[in-house]
Amino acid sequence: MASDPRPAANVFDRNCPSRPVLEHATSRWGVLVLGALLGGTRRFSELRREVDGVSEKMLSATLQALERDGMVEREVRPVIPPHVDYSLTELGVRTARHVRGLYEWIEEALPSVLAAQRRYDERPPRSSRPGR
Amino acid sequence: MASDPRPAANVFDRNCPSRPVLEHATSRWGVLVLGALLGGTRRFSELRREVDGVSEKMLSATLQALERDGMVEREVRPVIPPHVDYSLTELGVRTARHVRGLYEWIEEALPSVLAAQRRYDERPPRSSRPGR
Repeated sequence: MASDPRPAANVFDRNCPSRPVLEHATSRWGVLVLGALLGGTRRFSELRREVDGVSEKMLSATLQALERDGMVEREVRPVIPPHVDYSLTELGVRTARHVRGLYEWIEEALPSVLAAQRRYDERPPRSSRPGR
Repeated sequence: MASDPRPAANVFDRNCPSRPVLEHATSRWGVLVLGALLGGTRRFSELRREVDGVSEKMLSATLQALERDGMVEREVRPVIPPHVDYSLTELGVRTARHVRGLYEWIEEALPSVLAAQRRYDERPPRSSRPGR
């Protein structure tokens, strides 16, 4: 019986090449860059402002990883002064929608999360911690 | 006019408490722990096997952050030998479903991503890199 010679991707397998791709999309800045670009094409400086707290170096590295993964397109605009536009590819849009679904849910759930954190912090220390 | 005194959560704001919560759910091991627990209650040792490559220390830290955020419940089972069960709360299930949607999409998209990576790596170096 013929079978697909290519094993299915599995992020639970440490050697699967899907893992670094997932990590780029879920990195601290990857999440926010994907989310910002869902709003449309952005220049580097616009992304820098929108993704509050990112350094130039980390934004460059994040964009480059997402570009290499086929999520982000980088277009040099030969105008004066020259600038570079970043936008999502089709692959990037689909990825970014999942990412946005996640962070919008976290934003919505934040009051419940903060309440859980307060309950956790008020508990007496457990003698068995860090038991398994 | 009366307005909600609590500003809406916004992960793009570096000071918003939603940001660390998002980071716990999207951390390298947070993603995989949430995904594994969608399959049901797990012991520490079971999670350790399922989340290929995680160290004991990182798994403990990941579970503790998710427990504090109200995503994961930890239950000591007073049996012989004693063990601890980890499971998702309702909040955790909803978060984990978003996370799984994302990583299942990445697994599905992997062939396209790998093709993009090959194209990227074969391109001549750009004189303007890292232009903006």
